Amino acid sequence: MSDAGGATTRRRGRPPRTESAGTRDRILTTAREEFSERGYEKTSVRGIAKAAGVDPALVHHYFGTKEQVFAAAVEVAFAPALEAPGAIADGPLAGVGERLTRFILGVWENPATRTPLLAILRSAVNNETAAAVFRRLIADQVLHRVAAQLDPPDAELRVELAAAQLVGCAMLRYVVKVEPLASADAEQIVARLAPVVQGHLTGP
Amino acid sequence: MSDAGGATTRRRGRPPRTESAGTRDRILTTAREEFSERGYEKTSVRGIAKAAGVDPALVHHYFGTKEQVFAAAVEVAFAPALEAPGAIADGPLAGVGERLTRFILGVWENPATRTPLLAILRSAVNNETAAAVFRRLIADQVLHRVAAQLDPPDAELRVELAAAQLVGCAMLRYVVKVEPLASADAEQIVARLAPVVQGHLTGP
Repeated sequence: MSDAGGATTRRRGRPPRTESAGTRDRILTTAREEFSERGYEKTSVRGIAKAAGVDPALVHHYFGTKEQVFAAAVEVAFAPALEAPGAIADGPLAGVGERLTRFILGVWENPATRTPLLAILRSAVNNETAAAVFRRLIADQVLHRVAAQLDPPDAELRVELAAAQLVGCAMLRYVVKVEPLASADAEQIVARLAPVVQGHLTGP
Repeated sequence: MSDAGGATTRRRGRPPRTESAGTRDRILTTAREEFSERGYEKTSVRGIAKAAGVDPALVHHYFGTKEQVFAAAVEVAFAPALEAPGAIADGPLAGVGERLTRFILGVWENPATRTPLLAILRSAVNNETAAAVFRRLIADQVLHRVAAQLDPPDAELRVELAAAQLVGCAMLRYVVKVEPLASADAEQIVARLAPVVQGHLTGP
């Protein structure tokens, strides 16, 4: 438990950068696994600390409350999405619907990103606090940034209805697995959804 | 426990209609409440029986396994939806998008139908068996019946992508509660989504 002891001693200072990054990352990876397996309600800071082999005080030191640990774990899972809005909104506005649709299908098709997304979705559906974290992250980091690239006064509502089309598709295809949608070719879905997303964002 | 005793005696026959209907309904209402509160995994036939004041054997007698009790509880929650596809698909095809959008927003706006819908959504997102029940019900009872009214060879995929738009809107508006969507006027949402749903169903 040298990590925990060290952190306690240095509580008000910053741990040396290299140790800090390694331990912090390990806690975060463990937290993501714990939230994925158990869901928000059944996961505890104590359980995350135990699984990561550190003192619970160290988890609090780096992240704060359980809610803040969850927010940090979600943020990592969403890292590609958080970098993407710029790239998605940049480039010709006429292609934004297709870029956004391809991006969302891409993160769901990739098992490495699908697992944390499923965990977040499960936690958000089951727990009000987790839903609030998810809501803030999506609203602040993704929706507002895409909406800022658009013109109309109802830009945020438009972005959310576009997101609704993609979230619903992910739900039915990857979670509920309704056929023929679950087995449909991704390109066929892009062909159908890209114009719809485009219409929401830039249509009349 | 006279119900339970009576049912055991008459196990292979049918209970008299009036007692049967009352007890059966009570079990079903209790089952819906238990699944709503606890989710699929934590709900047991024994727990439902106890809450309804009957013997577990009676629950099995009427419904079978826990999965079948869940299916029956879900079917009751979906009763309006199960009657609706006819009414929605009947009438001019040009108005089907608006009728479907209004119907789905209607069942989510109404607290009496929203609660069991939320319970079903939570169970389906968290448990594979519950997801399978949900999938079968949606596919057999709703999607195929609406698709049967349409022409194109990809009618079922079209219905599912239309459903995805509405499911995603329900997720973001009523579960995750993203603003401004959560507080937007229902008529504003209908105005934006009805043409999209219509396009999925009857567009090019």
